[in-house]
Amino acid sequence: QESNAPNFGNGLFNLVGKDSSWTMKVGARMQILATNTWNSENGGLTDPEQNFLVRRARLKFDGFAYSPKLVYKIELGLSNRDISGASQFTGNAPRYIFDAVVKWNFFENFVLWFGQTKLPGNIERVISSGNLLQVDRSLLNGRFTIDRDMGFQLRHKTNIGQKFLIREIFALSQGEGRNITTGNLGGLQYTSRLELLPFGEFLGRGDYKGSDLNREKTPKLMIAATYDTNQNAVKSRSNQGSYLFNDVGFFETNINTVFIDAMFKYNGFSFMGEYANRQAKDPIAKNSDGSATGIVVDMGSGLNLQSGYLFENNWEVSGRFTTIGLDQEITGQNTQNQYTLGLSKYIVGHKLKVQSDLSYLSQIASTNILTYRLQLEVHF
Amino acid sequence: QESNAPNFGNGLFNLVGKDSSWTMKVGARMQILATNTWNSENGGLTDPEQNFLVRRARLKFDGFAYSPKLVYKIELGLSNRDISGASQFTGNAPRYIFDAVVKWNFFENFVLWFGQTKLPGNIERVISSGNLLQVDRSLLNGRFTIDRDMGFQLRHKTNIGQKFLIREIFALSQGEGRNITTGNLGGLQYTSRLELLPFGEFLGRGDYKGSDLNREKTPKLMIAATYDTNQNAVKSRSNQGSYLFNDVGFFETNINTVFIDAMFKYNGFSFMGEYANRQAKDPIAKNSDGSATGIVVDMGSGLNLQSGYLFENNWEVSGRFTTIGLDQEITGQNTQNQYTLGLSKYIVGHKLKVQSDLSYLSQIASTNILTYRLQLEVHF
Amino acid sequence: QESNAPNFGNGLFNLVGKDSSWTMKVGARMQILATNTWNSENGGLTDPEQNFLVRRARLKFDGFAYSPKLVYKIELGLSNRDISGASQFTGNAPRYIFDAVVKWNFFENFVLWFGQTKLPGNIERVISSGNLLQVDRSLLNGRFTIDRDMGFQLRHKTNIGQKFLIREIFALSQGEGRNITTGNLGGLQYTSRLELLPFGEFLGRGDYKGSDLNREKTPKLMIAATYDTNQNAVKSRSNQGSYLFNDVGFFETNINTVFIDAMFKYNGFSFMGEYANRQAKDPIAKNSDGSATGIVVDMGSGLNLQSGYLFENNWEVSGRFTTIGLDQEITGQNTQNQYTLGLSKYIVGHKLKVQSDLSYLSQIASTNILTYRLQLEVHF
Repeated sequence: QESNAPNFGNGLFNLVGKDSSWTMKVGARMQILATNTWNSENGGLTDPEQNFLVRRARLKFDGFAYSPKLVYKIELGLSNRDISGASQFTGNAPRYIFDAVVKWNFFENFVLWFGQTKLPGNIERVISSGNLLQVDRSLLNGRFTIDRDMGFQLRHKTNIGQKFLIREIFALSQGEGRNITTGNLGGLQYTSRLELLPFGEFLGRGDYKGSDLNREKTPKLMIAATYDTNQNAVKSRSNQGSYLFNDVGFFETNINTVFIDAMFKYNGFSFMGEYANRQAKDPIAKNSDGSATGIVVDMGSGLNLQSGYLFENNWEVSGRFTTIGLDQEITGQNTQNQYTLGLSKYIVGHKLKVQSDLSYLSQIASTNILTYRLQLEVHF
Repeated sequence: QESNAPNFGNGLFNLVGKDSSWTMKVGARMQILATNTWNSENGGLTDPEQNFLVRRARLKFDGFAYSPKLVYKIELGLSNRDISGASQFTGNAPRYIFDAVVKWNFFENFVLWFGQTKLPGNIERVISSGNLLQVDRSLLNGRFTIDRDMGFQLRHKTNIGQKFLIREIFALSQGEGRNITTGNLGGLQYTSRLELLPFGEFLGRGDYKGSDLNREKTPKLMIAATYDTNQNAVKSRSNQGSYLFNDVGFFETNINTVFIDAMFKYNGFSFMGEYANRQAKDPIAKNSDGSATGIVVDMGSGLNLQSGYLFENNWEVSGRFTTIGLDQEITGQNTQNQYTLGLSKYIVGHKLKVQSDLSYLSQIASTNILTYRLQLEVHF
Repeated sequence: QESNAPNFGNGLFNLVGKDSSWTMKVGARMQILATNTWNSENGGLTDPEQNFLVRRARLKFDGFAYSPKLVYKIELGLSNRDISGASQFTGNAPRYIFDAVVKWNFFENFVLWFGQTKLPGNIERVISSGNLLQVDRSLLNGRFTIDRDMGFQLRHKTNIGQKFLIREIFALSQGEGRNITTGNLGGLQYTSRLELLPFGEFLGRGDYKGSDLNREKTPKLMIAATYDTNQNAVKSRSNQGSYLFNDVGFFETNINTVFIDAMFKYNGFSFMGEYANRQAKDPIAKNSDGSATGIVVDMGSGLNLQSGYLFENNWEVSGRFTTIGLDQEITGQNTQNQYTLGLSKYIVGHKLKVQSDLSYLSQIASTNILTYRLQLEVHF
C-alpha cells in the first residue's frame, strides 16, 4: 500500500490549495476512560463505583485562508461529555463547537483574533486536553478556569535581549462562556495576561504542553499572570458555572479572577504551578427585595502543583497536589486537598499514550474519596 | 509545499472515484458575527446590547453516485444557531442535517428529488446563506419562508426560442419542516414554482446568488412565482413557526402562501424584489369546544426590495427596504418597516468576505431599533 | 477528471500514513425512507399515515493506529433518528457516537476491545443497518436486542479440523447502553457468545450480512448462542428500554437474556433465524414500600425467521415471519405476529440499493396494521 497521508500524529490530511492559497490540517482524536472510585472510611474502602466513558472525541481543522497572515482554527466535540451543557442560552442545542476563530496578523508581531476560543486564562486550561501530564486537569481548573468565550483578542510578543521573550494578551469577551446564542447578559469581560519566558521559547511549544517529551537541553521557564474582570457578571464562576437567576431575571455583580502560574522543564523533568483567586463585589445573589436567591459566587483561592519525570523508555511518573479553599462563610464549602500519583506510557508521544492515576481526595466534614483512572488516547 | 487540494473556495476535496463511478466535493464554511443594537427613542440611542456569535458553520458534501444522472447533496450544520429547534417532533435531538437529498435525472430535462432540502419558495431563501448580498436575510424571509421540508420534488426546464428559459418545479412534502421524526401531522404540502428567464441563464448561476460578482455583460432577469398550499396544516407559518396545539392535539387548517419574486443583474448592479402573501382558511386556532387557543396563523403580506452596486475594487454598497404587514385583527401586530444600508468587501468573492450593515426598524406602537452588524465569512 | 479516490462503496478515503504507521478508511452513508401505514379493520384500510425520513446518516472511520495489531473504529450518527435518546444520563446531549472502540490483538488469536460498540448479541443486530436483507430490522430486535454498551470485550477464534471455525466472545459492560456520562448504575453486565461455523468462513464476511450477494458456491452455516446477564439492572430491557425509576432512585433486578440464532447461505439463497428469551429475577419494579411502580421488565420470548433469494439480475425477493410473546401476566401485552414480503434491487450491492417491503402486523385485542416502506441507500 502506498502512503498518501502524514506520519502518525500529524493529522489525517495536510491540505495545500493550488497556488498555496490556503492550507488545512485535519486532526482527530479520542480518549477512552475507565474510572473506579471508592469511599474511604475508617481505614476501609466502600461503595465502589465504575464509569466507562468516551471521555473526549474531537475533530480539529486549522490552517490559513487566502494569506498565511490569516489563520483559522475550528475544533468540534463529538462525545456526550464534550457537547453537554445545552440550555435556553445555547438554543437548547448541544455545544458542538469548541473553537471557531480567525487570527489576523495585521501588523508585525500583533495578531487580532475574532470568534470563539480559549481565553488567556490559567496555563492548565490552555494546554490542550490531549497534551496533559496526567489523565485529566486538576480541581483548580474545575473551580476557577475561565475556559472559552466569544469575542476579540489582541496578542503581541516581543524579545528583550537575546532570549527573554514577553507575550502580552488582551481579550474582550461576551462573558457567559461558549456557544451562547442569546447575546450578552450583564456587561462584558476583560482579560489580560502577561507571559515571561526568561530563557527563551520551549522546544516544540512545550510551554503549552504537559511532560518534557522534548527533553530540554537547557532549563526553560515561563512565569505568567492573568487578570480577568467580568463586569456585571451573571454566572457563579465569572463566565462559567451556574446562572445567577433571580426573581426579575439575573443578579449581576463584578467578578475578578487572578491566575499566577509557572511552567518549568529541563531534561525530562517538568514542573507546573498555578495559583488562582476569585473575588466578587457582591458574591451573594439577591432578589429585587434584597433576599438571597441561594446561589453564590464561588469566591476563594486554589493552588495546584504538579511535577513529572520522563524516563528514557518514555514511561513517566508524576505527582500532583491540589488545594481548593473557597470562602467558607459565603459558599459553605470546606477546604479540599487532593493528592495524585500518575503513571504514563507515551507510545507515540501525546498522540498514542496510556495514562493512569490514583487520587486521594481529603475533605473536612465529608467523605474522603479514592479514585483510580485508566485512559487511552489515540490522536491522528 | 506541494499542492494537493483545489483553489481557495472550491472545496476541501474534489474526489473522483475509480472508473469515475462517483464524485464528491467536500466544502466547509463559517460565519462569525458581531451585532450591536440600540433602542431609538426620542432622538437618542439607549440600551445598547451586544451579541458575538458563530452564526453559521456548515459542512457540505455533493456529487454523483454510480451515474452522473444520480446526484446527491448533504449539508450539515454545526453552530448552535444552525442546529437549534429540537422538539418532541425531532426526537428531542438537534437539527443537525440541513439537506440530505438525492436527485435523479430519469428522463431528458426531468429530475426527481427525494429527501430533505429547500422547497421551491422565495428567491431569498433558495440563495445560500453564504451567497447573500447583505449580512443576513430580510424580515420577509423570517416571516414567510417555507424553507426546507421532506418529500419529493419534480423539476423540469425548457427553452423557448434561443434564450428564453422556463423552469417548472413541483414539490410534495410532509409539511412540518425539516428533521421531523414523528411522521406527518394533518395533511401534505404541495408547492409549485415557475421561473422565467427571458434573457437566458445568468453567469455562474447568478440567479440564485446575491451581488453581481460576475458583472453580467448583458442584462439578465428572472421573474418567478410560487404557490404553496399546506392542507390541514398544524403550524402557524405553514410548515414553519409554532405548532397549533389545542386541547385534543392539533388545530388543523389549510394555509396558502404565494411568492412573487424577481432577480435582475447587469454590469455590477443587482436588484432583488420579493412579495409574499399568506392566507389561512381559518387562521385562529381553536379547541374542540370552539374557544381560541391563543395561537394564530401569521396571515398577511410582505415586500422586500434590495439592490447593490459592486465597484471595480470589489467593495459593494447596498440598500434594502422591507415592509411586513400582518393581518392586525388576527395577529394583533402592527406594520414593520426596515431600512438597511450595507457595505461589503469581497476578498475572494463570496468565499472570503467581510460584510457590514446598519438597519433601522420602524415599528408603530413599539420601540424603534437600530442594529449594526459585522460579519466575516470564510468558505472553503 | 483523474481518479483520486476508491471505487464506489469502498470509502471516501483510504488513508495510509507514512511508513505505514496508520491507516484510515472514511465511509459515509445515508438512508432515505418513505413509509405509509394503514389500520386494517373489517377487511378495509383506514387512517393512512405518511412518514418521510432521513432514516440513517452515518460517518465511519476505521483502520489501525501505530501497529496493525491495534485497530480502531469510530461511527457517528447524523440523522435525528440516529442521535435521539438524550437524557440526564447522557449529559442531556444527543447520542452522536455509535462506536468508539479500540481493538488490540495482544496475543495470537486473542483480541481485547476497549470502548463503546455493539455487544455480542443477536445476529440481526450485529449485521450493520447498511447490510440488511429488508428495509429494517425485525420486531424481535426491537424488543430483545442488547445493542451497544461501554466496556471491555475479549474475543478469540480457533479452527477445529480443516474448516470448522469457532469464535468465543466475552464482554464486560457498564450495562445501561451507549453514551452514558453518569457512570454505572446497579451492577455490571456480562455477555458470552459462541459462534460455530461448521463449513468454514462465509465469503466476504457474509455471516454478518443480509442477502447472499456473494452467491456461496458451497453451503455456509453459522449457529450461535449468546447468554447475557445484567446484574442489578436498572432498565426494562437489560441495558435498553426505560429506566426502572422508583421512589428512592432505581429498582434493581438481575435480567438474563438468551439468543440462539443461525445464518445459512448457498447460491443466492439466504436464511436467518433468531430466538430470543428474557427473564428477570423480579420483573415488577417496586418502590421502597413494595408497591409496584408501574414499570416492568419486558419478559418473554420472540422468534424471527427470514429468507431471501437473489436473482441473477440482482433483484431479491424475501419473506419474514416474526412472533413476539411477552409474558402477558406481567407486561399485559398480547402476542404480535408480523408477516413481511420484501423486494430489493441491489444496484451496487448493499452500497447503492432500493428496498421495499410490505408488512402485516396481526395483534390480538388491538388494531392490525399494514405498512409499506420504500428506502434508498447510498453508501460511499
